[in-house]
Amino acid sequence: METSRCTLITDSRYAFQAREEVSDANVHIAKHGLLRGVAETLGRHRKRFPVAYGPSRVTVTQKATLQALGGPQVRWVGDGDAVERLRAVKDPGELVLMREAAKLISDVFAGALPEIKPGIAELTLAAEIEYAIKQKGGSGASFETIVASGARSAWAHARPTCKPLRKNELVVLDQGAILRGYCSDLTRTVFLGRAPASVRRLYNAVLEAQGAARDAIRPGVEAGEVDAAARRALKRHRLARYFTHSTGHGLGIEVHEMPRLARGEKTVLEEGMVVTIEPGVYIQGLGGIRIEDDVVVTSKGAVDLTSAPREFLEL
Amino acid sequence: METSRCTLITDSRYAFQAREEVSDANVHIAKHGLLRGVAETLGRHRKRFPVAYGPSRVTVTQKATLQALGGPQVRWVGDGDAVERLRAVKDPGELVLMREAAKLISDVFAGALPEIKPGIAELTLAAEIEYAIKQKGGSGASFETIVASGARSAWAHARPTCKPLRKNELVVLDQGAILRGYCSDLTRTVFLGRAPASVRRLYNAVLEAQGAARDAIRPGVEAGEVDAAARRALKRHRLARYFTHSTGHGLGIEVHEMPRLARGEKTVLEEGMVVTIEPGVYIQGLGGIRIEDDVVVTSKGAVDLTSAPREFLEL
Repeated sequence: METSRCTLITDSRYAFQAREEVSDANVHIAKHGLLRGVAETLGRHRKRFPVAYGPSRVTVTQKATLQALGGPQVRWVGDGDAVERLRAVKDPGELVLMREAAKLISDVFAGALPEIKPGIAELTLAAEIEYAIKQKGGSGASFETIVASGARSAWAHARPTCKPLRKNELVVLDQGAILRGYCSDLTRTVFLGRAPASVRRLYNAVLEAQGAARDAIRPGVEAGEVDAAARRALKRHRLARYFTHSTGHGLGIEVHEMPRLARGEKTVLEEGMVVTIEPGVYIQGLGGIRIEDDVVVTSKGAVDLTSAPREFLEL
Repeated sequence: METSRCTLITDSRYAFQAREEVSDANVHIAKHGLLRGVAETLGRHRKRFPVAYGPSRVTVTQKATLQALGGPQVRWVGDGDAVERLRAVKDPGELVLMREAAKLISDVFAGALPEIKPGIAELTLAAEIEYAIKQKGGSGASFETIVASGARSAWAHARPTCKPLRKNELVVLDQGAILRGYCSDLTRTVFLGRAPASVRRLYNAVLEAQGAARDAIRPGVEAGEVDAAARRALKRHRLARYFTHSTGHGLGIEVHEMPRLARGEKTVLEEGMVVTIEPGVYIQGLGGIRIEDDVVVTSKGAVDLTSAPREFLEL
């Protein structure tokens, strides 16, 4: 058998696992830290040569250690986020997994609906959601589940607390699952009780902004244009200033990948990219509303991966 | 009121939260990314001045961006892990919280014991544990819960799978909670059924190694000496080569902090440091055994924070 030109460097905690799971690559078990393991692997070469590394993933300390260990024959070259760019476009096999991860979190949300009622603590609801993710075969949450109710729903990134849900409150639920290595990310906002017309109008404006962003998605479009479409829709309702974050982000092995759907982003959308679309408005005192789905960019435009209902739910 | 010399730089997602939670510091809401926010804050000064940064936390890309944005008047100086060193020693208030986090995870393990039986999937058991963490008021798991059974228990860092637990297997359970910002980390290994004498001997050897490490802990001792004490104990049982990781690590706001209890580590233990003690042996085919507790370094030596029973449990 030919020796692979690919080497996985890991440590002894993963030695058995690497032996069982790695094929078509050499395995180097680093005995004195991963960075020394990298240097040992490089050391087999003799003449000066370039080594690409990911400057967005390597800390200043790690880089200095690599340089010292690698010695003068190694020329470290930033990879221009090559791995991140490669990962932004999903292949068909990856899309199957992402669709499953998105279905899983949609099912989890549907299953949680009967629990979303006055009296339950934000933290308990978050625990139920994360429990259900694992019960349905996910390996866990792709980020710390957000359950933010009442005035706290205006905190776009609120951590769940012991606060119980109450009648006549908005509740933002932002949850994601990891299934076989791939992430999903879904947000819905519900109202406990009968919502005032003003809240209903806010919800519809956010939904309209999400639709505008979805409609703007197709191969060849700059990511910033999608963000602009959501902002324009909210501007029509004089709500643009309450939309305090970007419209979405790439999704895959990590919950935040390329491309960012943000103001002025020049990245050009390609078929096979998977992004979230998640506009929101946050009004201090009143609360927040965010609606988020995961979509894949296809030649026909955005196709939804998540499948939870988007109409305004008054529970 | 005097203007604070301390500034928190965050983005608009956290604007409301910062207004409510931050006292005695200025808050700068960065509109175009955190790094630009840093540069904007620095820009208020006029002459050349040094700025300390954490090279172990800042990526090469971030450093380059900071340098470009900060301009030539800023001299970036590595902080020598000043923050990490400061955090290694806990103050009395922190120790109260860490004791609570350790009690929480000990309670969770005790509560999970009746569930640890043949038939339950590793993933389901992990889900139950993480659910219980939140039910007891924790904000979540401090790392992905490990439930590794049978041959898989020999993988020191196994992720739980759909594999059901079976009779006559070792099961390693490694779990941690975050409570009010502080982490705990607890491992126990149990046997399903009546264990053969050979497995019992292995367990007792690991327990002895843990005791030897615990006894070696006191202020003034080098971290590497604690690691050596555990290794010596396992060597007496001819098991040293199956102990494939280090003896422990600091614990606090993050689940891995300074100091590392590893071979040759020169960090000198100080009163108020909190570390895990977690020797283990991993034998391919047979399985693995790890016993882990969290202790605080006091003038009288190590004092346990975790409180789960350490005797060998045959369930």
